Amino acid sequence: MGALRLPSLTSIFAVSSARSSLFPRRSKQLNVRKLTSSAKVFAKSTPATEVAPAESNQKLPVQEQGITPRSQDFNAWYLDVISMAELADYGPVRGTMVIRPYGYAIWEAIQDYLNIKFKETGHSNMYFPQFIPYSFIEKEASHVEGFSPELALVTVGGGKELEEKLVVRPTSETIVNHMFTQWIQSYRDLPLMINQWANVTRWEMRTKPFIRTLEFLWQEGHTAHATPEEAEKEAMQMIDVYTKFSYEQAAIPVIPGRKSRVETFAGADRTYTIEAMMGDRKALQAGTSHNLGQNFSRAFGTQFADENGLRQHVWQTSWAISTRFVGGIIMTHGDDAGLMLPPRLASVQVVIVPIWKKAIEKNEVLDAALSVKDVLHTAGIKVKLDDSDQRTPGWKFNFWEMKGVPLRIEIGPRDVSSRSVVISRRDIPGKPGKVFGISMESSVLAPYITEKLDEIQSSLLEKATAFRDSNIVDVSSYDELKEAISQGKWARGPWVGSDEDESKSSRRSCNIC
Amino acid sequence: MGALRLPSLTSIFAVSSARSSLFPRRSKQLNVRKLTSSAKVFAKSTPATEVAPAESNQKLPVQEQGITPRSQDFNAWYLDVISMAELADYGPVRGTMVIRPYGYAIWEAIQDYLNIKFKETGHSNMYFPQFIPYSFIEKEASHVEGFSPELALVTVGGGKELEEKLVVRPTSETIVNHMFTQWIQSYRDLPLMINQWANVTRWEMRTKPFIRTLEFLWQEGHTAHATPEEAEKEAMQMIDVYTKFSYEQAAIPVIPGRKSRVETFAGADRTYTIEAMMGDRKALQAGTSHNLGQNFSRAFGTQFADENGLRQHVWQTSWAISTRFVGGIIMTHGDDAGLMLPPRLASVQVVIVPIWKKAIEKNEVLDAALSVKDVLHTAGIKVKLDDSDQRTPGWKFNFWEMKGVPLRIEIGPRDVSSRSVVISRRDIPGKPGKVFGISMESSVLAPYITEKLDEIQSSLLEKATAFRDSNIVDVSSYDELKEAISQGKWARGPWVGSDEDESKSSRRSCNIC
Repeated sequence: MGALRLPSLTSIFAVSSARSSLFPRRSKQLNVRKLTSSAKVFAKSTPATEVAPAESNQKLPVQEQGITPRSQDFNAWYLDVISMAELADYGPVRGTMVIRPYGYAIWEAIQDYLNIKFKETGHSNMYFPQFIPYSFIEKEASHVEGFSPELALVTVGGGKELEEKLVVRPTSETIVNHMFTQWIQSYRDLPLMINQWANVTRWEMRTKPFIRTLEFLWQEGHTAHATPEEAEKEAMQMIDVYTKFSYEQAAIPVIPGRKSRVETFAGADRTYTIEAMMGDRKALQAGTSHNLGQNFSRAFGTQFADENGLRQHVWQTSWAISTRFVGGIIMTHGDDAGLMLPPRLASVQVVIVPIWKKAIEKNEVLDAALSVKDVLHTAGIKVKLDDSDQRTPGWKFNFWEMKGVPLRIEIGPRDVSSRSVVISRRDIPGKPGKVFGISMESSVLAPYITEKLDEIQSSLLEKATAFRDSNIVDVSSYDELKEAISQGKWARGPWVGSDEDESKSSRRSCNIC
Repeated sequence: MGALRLPSLTSIFAVSSARSSLFPRRSKQLNVRKLTSSAKVFAKSTPATEVAPAESNQKLPVQEQGITPRSQDFNAWYLDVISMAELADYGPVRGTMVIRPYGYAIWEAIQDYLNIKFKETGHSNMYFPQFIPYSFIEKEASHVEGFSPELALVTVGGGKELEEKLVVRPTSETIVNHMFTQWIQSYRDLPLMINQWANVTRWEMRTKPFIRTLEFLWQEGHTAHATPEEAEKEAMQMIDVYTKFSYEQAAIPVIPGRKSRVETFAGADRTYTIEAMMGDRKALQAGTSHNLGQNFSRAFGTQFADENGLRQHVWQTSWAISTRFVGGIIMTHGDDAGLMLPPRLASVQVVIVPIWKKAIEKNEVLDAALSVKDVLHTAGIKVKLDDSDQRTPGWKFNFWEMKGVPLRIEIGPRDVSSRSVVISRRDIPGKPGKVFGISMESSVLAPYITEKLDEIQSSLLEKATAFRDSNIVDVSSYDELKEAISQGKWARGPWVGSDEDESKSSRRSCNIC
C-alpha cells in the first residue's frame, strides 16, 4: 500500500469521552504534570450495553433468516455478526466470552504482526504470575483507587482460606515492579524492555463481547529506563507501532493522541491512545501506551545505580492492545451482509465455491477447484475450498460473505471449459464487484489475486477514513461542540485541558453514564 | 537427523510411579475398562521438593562462584541453573514462578513447533474463559474427587461476595463440554478438534520451578468424535505428536506408554503418557493424552444426532504439554557447567565472542564478528554477538556455556588475519570440542555451522538414550524389581496391572509420599 500518511502525535491530540473505557482507569488523584491546552476530539463512546445475562447457558442470537440490519440496530447487528460468523459465544459465567476458532484466528493474526514489531523494537516476551498479593495493589495510591472496584479475589486455595487474599491480575504494573527490583541493579541493566501475552480480569458490570468482558486477552509491555526522556520516547514509539498496525493491517484509521487527565491510566503520568470511529460513529479506544513516570518505581522502590553510583528510581512505561481490537474490526468494516475482514488479518483470504448441477460435472469442477486452491496456496495466499455437498452454492455465497472473506472464486462447468474463474469482492456488493474470465493459469491468477487483496486492503482503509473525516466537525465554541455532538458527530476543537470542561462534555456525550 | 526409531506405543507400556504428577489426577473411582496385563517400567519419580518459601521476596540462589555440581546435589544444581541462566524466578505468591525471557524463549520454540503440528492434524486454536462455575467441577464424579483438593476459588468479584464461587481453571474439560453442547448438533459437526494455549492453576503444596507450580502455562487439546475408535485414534495420534516432538526437537528419548488405572486422569478411560528419564534417573511425566470415553459427555449431556437421527453421547479426548517440559530439558541435558540446549529449541544457537587486547585490534575484530553474524543470520541461524566491553572473553565463555548455547565462535586478531574462526561445541568440553581455522567465507561457514548444529542435536539424543538404556533393567520377579529400584534404576517387567502391585511398588520407589 506504500507509505501511509499517519496523523502526527504532536499535531493531533484526541480523547474519547468514554467514561469507563477498558484499559485506562480514571485516576482521581491530581497529577503533578501541568496540563497544556491542546486540541480535543469529542465523541460518543461505544456503549457497553448490558448484554450478558445473569443466568448461564444464554446463547448469542442465531437468526436463520439473517442478520439484523446495521442501520436498524447497530448493537443487535454487532451481536448477530459475532454469533453467525462464529467469532465468539458467551461463557457460562456472566460477562465472560469464549473466543471461537474463527474469531481467535483474527487475534492470532494480530499477535503474529505485533510480536515481530515488539521484538524488532527490542522487547522480549516473558510471563508473570496472574496472582498478585492484595497488598501490592495498594502500594500505588491512584492505581488502587482506579482498580479496586473491579478486582476478582482468590480467597481460598487448596481447600483453605488464604492469609492474604490474591488479586487475579487486572494489569501487571505492580508485580512487574516487584520483580524489576530484583533484576535492576545498575544503569547497565537498563533499559529493561519486556512484553507478555496474557489473560486479565476486570469485574466489569456492563459487558459486551470483545469490547468489554470480565476476562480478556491482551499483550502488556513493560519497560524501565534511566531517564524520563527515554521513557517518553518509548511510550510514543509504542503508540506509533499500534497506529501503524491499525492503519496498515486492520485498515482502521485511528486517531492517536493523548488522554485527558481524567482518563489517564491509574498510576500513569501520561496516557497515549489510539481512538477509532466505529460504524455508528462512536469512539473505541483501541490501544494505549502509558508513560508511568516514577509512580510505580517510587511505590515499589525500583532503583538503579547511575554512572556516578547514585541510586535513582527508574522511569517506566506500559502499553497494551487487547482482544477488544477484534470488536473494533467488526464495527469498523462490517455491513448488513456481516463481517468484512481486512485481507491482512483474514485467516481465509479467498474462498473457492465450486458449482455443479449434474453428477457428471462434479469431478471436473472439483478437480479444477483443487488445482486453483493449490496455485493460490503455493503463492502464499490463505485459501479455503468449500466443497461440502450439504449446501447450495447460494448458501455458501451468503455464508462466506457473512464471514467476511475478502474474495470469492466461483468455478462452474463453463469456467472449467474456458479455464477461467469468476471472482467476487466482498467489499463491493453485486455485479460491480464481480469479474469474469480470469485465467486459471498460475502465472495469471496468483498475481491477480494478490493485487486484488492489496486493493481491498487499501479500499477498506480509504472508505473508513472517508467515513471518519465526514463525521468530524471543526468547532470553535461550546455551542458548536454541542451541535456537532447532538448530530452524532465528533467535534475537533481547541481545549484548555481542564477537568471542568471535560466533565461538561462527558455529561452531554456519554450514553452509558 | 533423518528418520528416528521411535518406541511403538503398542510395544512399550511404561508408567512412572510418581504419586502426584502434574497433569493426571488420580481417579479413585473404579473404571469400567478392564485392565489387561502389560509391561511396566518402575522408576523413582522426580521429587517435587518444597523449594518455594512462605515469605515473598525469596530469590533463587545466585552463586557468583558457580553452579553446585550436579553429582553433588541434583536439586540444588537444578535451581542454580534456573537462576544463573536467567530462566525463571520465584513469584511473590508461594509456589508461583516468573518465566524470564531466556526461559520463555524455550517455551515459544515449543509452541512454534506444536502449533504447526496441531494445525496440520486438523485442530484450531481458540480460547475458553478461565473462571468455571464450581458446580461444573462437581458434575463428573472422579474429576471433582481428583481436582477439588487443589482448586483456587474466586469468591469476591467487583467488591461483592459471589453467589456461586468460581474455580480458576485447573483444566478445561468441564467448560469445554458446556460449550460443546451448544456447538454440536449432528454428526456433521464432528469431529470437533480444538486446542488452547492458556494458564492453569493447581494449588500444589510442594512446588519446584517449571516442574510443579501453582500456575503454569500449557496447551490443552480437546476433541469430540462420533465413535470410540476415532477418539482412541486421536488420543494415540497426539501422544505420537508429543513423542516425535520430544525426540526430534527436545532430544529427549521419552518412553510413550499407558498410565496405570491409579494414575489415569480423573475423568478419563485411558491416559497415555510420555515419560522421560532425568539426569538423576528419576522419571518425569512430560506430556499426556487422555481418551475420555463418554465420561464428560454423559455428565454434561454432550450429544449428537447420528446418521439415523439417534441421539448419542460424543467420545472425547484431551491432551496437554506444559512449561514443565522446560524443566525436563534442563534435567535431561544439563551438566556441571549449566544448561545445555538442543539446537532446535535454542533461541541462541551460536554466540560470537570477539577477542582483542589492544584498542587497535578492536575495530577489525568487531568488523569481522559483525560480518560473521550477518553470514549466519542470513543462513537462518539464530546468532548473538556478545560485544559488550564490560566482561572478559573468559567470563563470556562461561556465561554462554552456562546458558547452554550449542556453539561458540571465537574471533581474535589472528583469526581476522587468516579470515578464519575458532568454533567450540557446548556438548564436548575443552579441546576435543574445539575446531580451529574454519573459513569465515559464507559458502564455507554457514553450511559448516548448520551441520554442526545437526550433529549436536543428534548427539544430545544419542547421549540421553544411552544414559536411559543403561539405567533400565529387565526384571522378572518382585525381588529383582526391588533390587533395580534400590540401585536407582528403572525396572522393566511384565505386570498384571493390579492396583495392589502398583501401590506396593509405589511405596518403595516414591520418595515424596
